[in-house]
Amino acid sequence: METSALKELLEKIYNRSIEPDQAMELLKDLPFEDMGFAQVDHHRTLRQGFPEVVYCEGKTVDQVVAVVDSLRKRNHGVLATRAEPHVYEAVKLIDDRAEYNPIGRTVTIKTVEKKPTEGMVLILTAGTSDIPVAEEALSTADLLGSAVETLYDVGVAGIHRLLGRREVLNRARVIIVVAGMDGALASVVGGMVDKPVVAVPTSVGYGASFDGVAALLTMLNSCAAGVAVVNIDNGFGAGCMAHMINILGEKE
Amino acid sequence: METSALKELLEKIYNRSIEPDQAMELLKDLPFEDMGFAQVDHHRTLRQGFPEVVYCEGKTVDQVVAVVDSLRKRNHGVLATRAEPHVYEAVKLIDDRAEYNPIGRTVTIKTVEKKPTEGMVLILTAGTSDIPVAEEALSTADLLGSAVETLYDVGVAGIHRLLGRREVLNRARVIIVVAGMDGALASVVGGMVDKPVVAVPTSVGYGASFDGVAALLTMLNSCAAGVAVVNIDNGFGAGCMAHMINILGEKE
Amino acid sequence: METSALKELLEKIYNRSIEPDQAMELLKDLPFEDMGFAQVDHHRTLRQGFPEVVYCEGKTVDQVVAVVDSLRKRNHGVLATRAEPHVYEAVKLIDDRAEYNPIGRTVTIKTVEKKPTEGMVLILTAGTSDIPVAEEALSTADLLGSAVETLYDVGVAGIHRLLGRREVLNRARVIIVVAGMDGALASVVGGMVDKPVVAVPTSVGYGASFDGVAALLTMLNSCAAGVAVVNIDNGFGAGCMAHMINILGEKE
Amino acid sequence: METSALKELLEKIYNRSIEPDQAMELLKDLPFEDMGFAQVDHHRTLRQGFPEVVYCEGKTVDQVVAVVDSLRKRNHGVLATRAEPHVYEAVKLIDDRAEYNPIGRTVTIKTVEKKPTEGMVLILTAGTSDIPVAEEALSTADLLGSAVETLYDVGVAGIHRLLGRREVLNRARVIIVVAGMDGALASVVGGMVDKPVVAVPTSVGYGASFDGVAALLTMLNSCAAGVAVVNIDNGFGAGCMAHMINILGEKE
Amino acid sequence: METSALKELLEKIYNRSIEPDQAMELLKDLPFEDMGFAQVDHHRTLRQGFPEVVYCEGKTVDQVVAVVDSLRKRNHGVLATRAEPHVYEAVKLIDDRAEYNPIGRTVTIKTVEKKPTEGMVLILTAGTSDIPVAEEALSTADLLGSAVETLYDVGVAGIHRLLGRREVLNRARVIIVVAGMDGALASVVGGMVDKPVVAVPTSVGYGASFDGVAALLTMLNSCAAGVAVVNIDNGFGAGCMAHMINILGEKE
Amino acid sequence: METSALKELLEKIYNRSIEPDQAMELLKDLPFEDMGFAQVDHHRTLRQGFPEVVYCEGKTVDQVVAVVDSLRKRNHGVLATRAEPHVYEAVKLIDDRAEYNPIGRTVTIKTVEKKPTEGMVLILTAGTSDIPVAEEALSTADLLGSAVETLYDVGVAGIHRLLGRREVLNRARVIIVVAGMDGALASVVGGMVDKPVVAVPTSVGYGASFDGVAALLTMLNSCAAGVAVVNIDNGFGAGCMAHMINILGEKE
Amino acid sequence: METSALKELLEKIYNRSIEPDQAMELLKDLPFEDMGFAQVDHHRTLRQGFPEVVYCEGKTVDQVVAVVDSLRKRNHGVLATRAEPHVYEAVKLIDDRAEYNPIGRTVTIKTVEKKPTEGMVLILTAGTSDIPVAEEALSTADLLGSAVETLYDVGVAGIHRLLGRREVLNRARVIIVVAGMDGALASVVGGMVDKPVVAVPTSVGYGASFDGVAALLTMLNSCAAGVAVVNIDNGFGAGCMAHMINILGEKE
Amino acid sequence: METSALKELLEKIYNRSIEPDQAMELLKDLPFEDMGFAQVDHHRTLRQGFPEVVYCEGKTVDQVVAVVDSLRKRNHGVLATRAEPHVYEAVKLIDDRAEYNPIGRTVTIKTVEKKPTEGMVLILTAGTSDIPVAEEALSTADLLGSAVETLYDVGVAGIHRLLGRREVLNRARVIIVVAGMDGALASVVGGMVDKPVVAVPTSVGYGASFDGVAALLTMLNSCAAGVAVVNIDNGFGAGCMAHMINILGEKE
Repeated sequence: METSALKELLEKIYNRSIEPDQAMELLKDLPFEDMGFAQVDHHRTLRQGFPEVVYCEGKTVDQVVAVVDSLRKRNHGVLATRAEPHVYEAVKLIDDRAEYNPIGRTVTIKTVEKKPTEGMVLILTAGTSDIPVAEEALSTADLLGSAVETLYDVGVAGIHRLLGRREVLNRARVIIVVAGMDGALASVVGGMVDKPVVAVPTSVGYGASFDGVAALLTMLNSCAAGVAVVNIDNGFGAGCMAHMINILGEKE
Repeated sequence: METSALKELLEKIYNRSIEPDQAMELLKDLPFEDMGFAQVDHHRTLRQGFPEVVYCEGKTVDQVVAVVDSLRKRNHGVLATRAEPHVYEAVKLIDDRAEYNPIGRTVTIKTVEKKPTEGMVLILTAGTSDIPVAEEALSTADLLGSAVETLYDVGVAGIHRLLGRREVLNRARVIIVVAGMDGALASVVGGMVDKPVVAVPTSVGYGASFDGVAALLTMLNSCAAGVAVVNIDNGFGAGCMAHMINILGEKE
Repeated sequence: METSALKELLEKIYNRSIEPDQAMELLKDLPFEDMGFAQVDHHRTLRQGFPEVVYCEGKTVDQVVAVVDSLRKRNHGVLATRAEPHVYEAVKLIDDRAEYNPIGRTVTIKTVEKKPTEGMVLILTAGTSDIPVAEEALSTADLLGSAVETLYDVGVAGIHRLLGRREVLNRARVIIVVAGMDGALASVVGGMVDKPVVAVPTSVGYGASFDGVAALLTMLNSCAAGVAVVNIDNGFGAGCMAHMINILGEKE
Repeated sequence: METSALKELLEKIYNRSIEPDQAMELLKDLPFEDMGFAQVDHHRTLRQGFPEVVYCEGKTVDQVVAVVDSLRKRNHGVLATRAEPHVYEAVKLIDDRAEYNPIGRTVTIKTVEKKPTEGMVLILTAGTSDIPVAEEALSTADLLGSAVETLYDVGVAGIHRLLGRREVLNRARVIIVVAGMDGALASVVGGMVDKPVVAVPTSVGYGASFDGVAALLTMLNSCAAGVAVVNIDNGFGAGCMAHMINILGEKE
Repeated sequence: METSALKELLEKIYNRSIEPDQAMELLKDLPFEDMGFAQVDHHRTLRQGFPEVVYCEGKTVDQVVAVVDSLRKRNHGVLATRAEPHVYEAVKLIDDRAEYNPIGRTVTIKTVEKKPTEGMVLILTAGTSDIPVAEEALSTADLLGSAVETLYDVGVAGIHRLLGRREVLNRARVIIVVAGMDGALASVVGGMVDKPVVAVPTSVGYGASFDGVAALLTMLNSCAAGVAVVNIDNGFGAGCMAHMINILGEKE
Repeated sequence: METSALKELLEKIYNRSIEPDQAMELLKDLPFEDMGFAQVDHHRTLRQGFPEVVYCEGKTVDQVVAVVDSLRKRNHGVLATRAEPHVYEAVKLIDDRAEYNPIGRTVTIKTVEKKPTEGMVLILTAGTSDIPVAEEALSTADLLGSAVETLYDVGVAGIHRLLGRREVLNRARVIIVVAGMDGALASVVGGMVDKPVVAVPTSVGYGASFDGVAALLTMLNSCAAGVAVVNIDNGFGAGCMAHMINILGEKE
Repeated sequence: METSALKELLEKIYNRSIEPDQAMELLKDLPFEDMGFAQVDHHRTLRQGFPEVVYCEGKTVDQVVAVVDSLRKRNHGVLATRAEPHVYEAVKLIDDRAEYNPIGRTVTIKTVEKKPTEGMVLILTAGTSDIPVAEEALSTADLLGSAVETLYDVGVAGIHRLLGRREVLNRARVIIVVAGMDGALASVVGGMVDKPVVAVPTSVGYGASFDGVAALLTMLNSCAAGVAVVNIDNGFGAGCMAHMINILGEKE
Repeated sequence: METSALKELLEKIYNRSIEPDQAMELLKDLPFEDMGFAQVDHHRTLRQGFPEVVYCEGKTVDQVVAVVDSLRKRNHGVLATRAEPHVYEAVKLIDDRAEYNPIGRTVTIKTVEKKPTEGMVLILTAGTSDIPVAEEALSTADLLGSAVETLYDVGVAGIHRLLGRREVLNRARVIIVVAGMDGALASVVGGMVDKPVVAVPTSVGYGASFDGVAALLTMLNSCAAGVAVVNIDNGFGAGCMAHMINILGEKE
């Protein structure tokens, strides 16, 4: 797409419908919007298949609303993560399609209706405390268009809870494993299935879990193949990665 | 498959063609082979779509050869990683189809001919010193059946080397990024494409690279979405993950 | 137990009192209860000799109460750890047998009366600030049925306080050592006795204690044999381990 | 300067306009002011070209005001960093030239008018959340006399935002790159320009960013040459370093 | 024992068969032997139930032989760990009962015949490379008198290898789990059994396994109860702990 | 002293003024007081030359007051560290000799008048923010009886502030250096003097100071000899060590 | 330069002296050379003012020679770092202008004669063992064209060695400080001068120096302003940074 | 001394027996000797009471011999640490008073006879493997003039070995505790005596001892007061510190 845009531009110059200086200028004005505190990347949908995401921590409510407004006006779907309720309320004021996932702390605006994918993204958690991260992944993959199912609290301390659910594992096309503490669930699931596993360590635990480092290392060292890892508590990243894998299997 | 095998067994009992005690026995003898020092997991091909891999470090040559022998006899493809030349020579003696990748240090035996996938796995490295890890990934994905291309030494210190190769990036279905030192290539590539990126940190670097920790952290914190990470120097893991993603896009 | 259940099932099929499809279904419904946010593991008592424990951090009061309710209704003893007073009050409303240990922050419900073990679990602390962790261990071992004694504030800075209490050390069957800061008490006790020592590092200390890492490393490197370690501040884990060791010595 | 002062002193002794004991005394009273809790270093302007800076964290408002007062009375420009609004208000009371940068949390008093340098310090941030650190650098370099421009939110996840601004990069004499998370912007910028880059990791990020360690390591391992690093979140240090480099290019 | 010895001494003084000064002297000469470079602790058998163990690393062959000689002369069983073959040969020269375990690198001398315990210590490894550590544990527990069985290479990447062996798990009284890489086996085993699990992380792995730290953290954070951990690669410590637990269950 | 007490006891038995069983009992009751939550070590004055110190963090006010009361009643000097103002007020109620150092957060009760030592302990800080730790050291050394002087804010960024004060350095017998951030002051002072330097890293700083780790490592690696280090922020430990060194130089 | 090249290209299209497809092709062929294992970045001189540097570790001698050959043929100056003597000998064979610095382990080829800069880069080391890193910096800055002076072994343990050399400090335009162990020299120098200091931590030291981490942290936390840091042992990076700063002060 | 030298110089100027310019020159030529690769600090004896020490690692034999020669010619005592036997042999050639401690790896030349101090430095080790570090401390303190005694292998795993030696502890004026693994000996000794304890962690141990970090942290967190710590394996530093403390107690 970008290449074609460039080619079109070069052809315009060749056809003298545009002059070199103007072309220089245009090459500088690739589609991002300078808001002073932010350069909103409207180009991302073309380049990556999904729009820029608004990470709310460290931004004022006004900044979040301004970026959301800029995105929705161009009909990009909107995803704001780590959003407290008052952020949601502020966004709701400018667009009443906004929805809030209070557990995953995400605000979403679906600007276009999409049919969910045929392939399914399955999200597992080891424990109850891992659910918020799982829900962030769910909101992300759902907004991007994937069909999603969840299965929570199936950690290895009672491995029969997982073994008894092989059928759901079998139906999935990609699996997200969310686990804190010992993070062992990723290895066990990775060894049971023939599909890619995206592992998300969480900061759940205490003492020598070191805010998720223990689970992170376990997952990186998984003795099962077909497991790759995203940052601690990064539900968004996992949802995104899983969706990008999932759509590869869709028949156009 | 596993489910169907179990069901078949249950039906045999129901039909009284087998007795409960025999069934108990069979359930214990799932297909792994007890070699004393190892339980070779012949079941893995059914479960995960690829056979058990032989990690040579910490094993004697005799142990490696014994496991390889057990695998090839059942017509599993064979992949031995971290294999020194003398290991290859020992394997070659029992099966002259064995091939050696001296840079990636892998021994492979292709027991069945497969047509490569239509989708292509692209492997990038940031520098020249990252190539051994990339070659381990190449051997892995190639043995499993993926079409693979490589583009080496395109790190961000001269980003035009990468920007000038957009066409190759566009042709790939999955991208493996192999980088040590600052590991920044994964973020830049992740921001340029709409396909899953499997990032492999390498232990290339010195001082505060801490044997790959710097690159690992960079990749885990990638501000681009669609990037997931495997262990430091884990070319095998990356090749495996990339292949599992790649085949999702194949039309059966 | 689990094996016998499976065998009984297989025999039922053989006797055609149950059909294969029903059997398949039953194998999926092993005894855990799906509460949506949690899969309560009622099977654990059979498998491990003690019921699932409710770790309260990161759970809402409603979630805690729901899980407690599910457990007590099946006559499992209940142990909830890291429970703030208001959690206790909520649990008390549904079962007035509930007791609270405000120092150890545990809620317990003894659903059956057990005679304490003959063997005694002795819990030592190095300092006064280690007592909360020790009390969590005490509540755990006590609920599970062990006889427990405590000896607090006997750290090595005044080693005569410990040397003067050899008689208590001698009466114990298992010893739990709870210590922060330098964690040296575990090594000293380990060298004095012929019984297993379960060491619990605590996050007590400042500066280079790194929230318990210093004590953890000391204990892992104990030059005395017969010392094993649980996670920082993990009084529950220590109480559990000590009880499992303790009951081995009981005469049935 | 210091040398010349010493020489003058020695000559005074030689000319017997001062006695050895007095000289001894004078050598003890080099120009710092003993305020009990602080030894204000009035000598620093001579030695380093800029006055002592007041780091407000860990100081009471009274202490800050006393040091500021001591500095401004000697006509030193004043820079107070990590200053909360109430600190600014207290300073404003004693000198109404005081200005506050609420984002960078700096209080400045320009006691003398300086013409900005011809050379320009360019400050880039990877994201919006890095702006506070960038603004601290801006206040610092500005007070010291450098011309400063900023370009915010141009991280590598959308690298066209940076590539489209080459002209600004070209106009700068020194570049400050402020980035958290993966910190990759420093490497990319370092590879694009022929000017010194001062890299500032920020504590922006979560999980395995470890409060800025990930970005710090990335920057230290930059595969581009011409990049040097200051402490995490140290906007002041970066502004100072950039100014000292910048003035080398000024024509006197 | 120690108490009784002291009491006997006090009674001797009371009966004036010994004088206070002599008593003072005796209290200084508790049973350790001063060899200059070592204080051999002959008292340990009384105190801990097993003799001092000779850790060979960092000792010369002569030092090892001298300590071994001192122990065997008092009829203590001898265990020397981390012993290279030439150490074994030197020990063999002074006592031909010496036996060598070349995989576990232990030298043992059984000075008295003991009947093995009724209870069994089961040693599991996740992989083949973990076997040397397991064999050190085996030699230790065996010398101390425990019955020991082993089951190697049953890691969670092929969990059916473990699930198919429940019967062995059920027969054990204590279980030692030896695992490197992700260390997940300890959690899975811990959740399956009602017996104490002693977990030994090994330095097997690469990259982010950090020489066993990943496995160590996994085990410390085990979400299964009844798991305690010893130092990385500390087979001796695990064997010792397991034996001390095992003998509690013996009927005298 | 302890030895003499024991000897006296043995002689009493010899003289039959006491019976063996009573002696056994007495040996158990060495002078510590069992307060349930604490074993107050009244023996410490005999053994170490100074009484047990009350570390207030993690203790209730009631616990602090009870221990203080127990100490002062035996005429031990009292030192309570990390004491908030309300702790002081509670102590003041039971003993109006109590004094409070609000910067160092110490409560002291001088139960006996001592003449300060001839030798002087000099306490230096690098910055103003290090003063609270310095004041804790001051209160400690002062209570124990040392003469103390202080020199604050003489860090190496303006090294003339230190060089101009050689005379004070020369007068000291022991020097305590308190520094955060780069901790370089300890090395510089250590290289200038011929007296022991006790270095105290502080948690002052930000970013890569890692709460005092940077300063701690600097001090441990001091290229000057005659420097030893105590824990981060451990003013008490430094004051104690310095006093123990200081009194060695006193003429009795 | 790059911009002007692009503009010229665009004008050629406008003038129809080149067609869009050819232009597309040209844009792909920016000046790097594909050697298979490496993409030699001939463009770097234009972009950064100095050519690509050959880091020899992890490359075969043949690879090094091939890259060197490619560079020198285009009249780029050549710098190969971490070069063992046999690498130098191989390079010497193809170009006898090659020179070797055996202490700094650098091979250089000066393809054009340059007059050294007027401004001087001063390189200090704290100890004798830091000299190899300093010599790498020296070779780098020298090849790039800077005048360089050195002053070795002036660490803070004998600070008069530094104080006695103020005149050299004063003559420098930029200062490189190379130090291991406590790394304190950077702070002291940074506080004495009004010029930029580039600090290089070295891996010299033992124990808690952690291969240069202690010095790195000290330098990052320098309480003196005007100090920026490069990677541990990165003499090349320091020489490069210092040269880029130094030439800003040259009058063209 | 330095002050008096300066004063004398100033008086010479005052008396016009020297001119200011000459004085300037002299102030530059403080007593260190420029050997190019080293600035030998002959001034150190005046300033610190002991001469510069030669750390042999990272120096060539020629460099060591040159520095030793420079020191001994001025009648400084010589101490070279981390010296391999061939270094000793080279030194012996130029001065046959040289002595070698092969365990502590030190070369010493006593250029003047000193009477040992009355006070005694006691060096304890926890194990046999800690002896080399202890011997480095012994050589250091001995050369500087302290009387030294040693007591090796008295670690806390058999604490009676230490308790039985109170008399030696009582005779010491300063105690050096050398311990690896859990490092607990320092805390126990610190709690038993009323004299300063200098603690030296060693890199003895394996696994989670992390080359001495575990022992270092234990010692820094010692719950006994009067303990200060030097770098891992730094026997020299401990010997130096202990001697400086010891001589404070000598009567002149």
